[in-house]
Amino acid sequence: MLEELPVVFKYHVFTCFQQRPPGHPRGSCTTSGAKPLWDRLQAKLGAQPLPDVSMTATGCLGFCRAGPLMVVYPQGVWYAPRTPEDIDEIVQSHFIDGNPVERLIIVPQL
Amino acid sequence: MLEELPVVFKYHVFTCFQQRPPGHPRGSCTTSGAKPLWDRLQAKLGAQPLPDVSMTATGCLGFCRAGPLMVVYPQGVWYAPRTPEDIDEIVQSHFIDGNPVERLIIVPQL
Repeated sequence: MLEELPVVFKYHVFTCFQQRPPGHPRGSCTTSGAKPLWDRLQAKLGAQPLPDVSMTATGCLGFCRAGPLMVVYPQGVWYAPRTPEDIDEIVQSHFIDGNPVERLIIVPQL
Repeated sequence: MLEELPVVFKYHVFTCFQQRPPGHPRGSCTTSGAKPLWDRLQAKLGAQPLPDVSMTATGCLGFCRAGPLMVVYPQGVWYAPRTPEDIDEIVQSHFIDGNPVERLIIVPQL
């Protein structure tokens, strides 16, 4: 049955906006500088609409020390971008050209 | 390369907590009664830990009129549960027994 379900988004991107106070032992993506990166991602996707790419803001995705974190489904690709240029590269290489950016991929450990 | 990436979560569940004011033309999952459902889901997952199931709160997933909405990745199954019993059925049938609950699945139209 599942095989019959259409793919709604080719790339559904979930970006962590979790915020904890500075000094919190778990840290958080926002205190690690996530927001300017996700703002950049949103602006890039808005400037060059890609109808099969959707971006959704989330609370904690876990793996807080590795943040800022985003995950792309259904492929299950976890990215830890650090700079605006990293975001630009993910958009161009992965979402437009279809080539994941290996150097920014992380594999979270449960 | 992507084929080599390990699956971090067998079921990564994203639940929409978007809230808009009553009467807003788009509606929202929270005004459609989402929060008690997601509280139930969180409680169920907490009471019977399933290490390969993760639940993440989100902002707007889109398709607001169809809410409350949740989506399960990497399978890309969109659910529109209405009652606590719907949540219980999804947990038992889909996440524990591996059988998606067809009657609660929706296919969002872009």
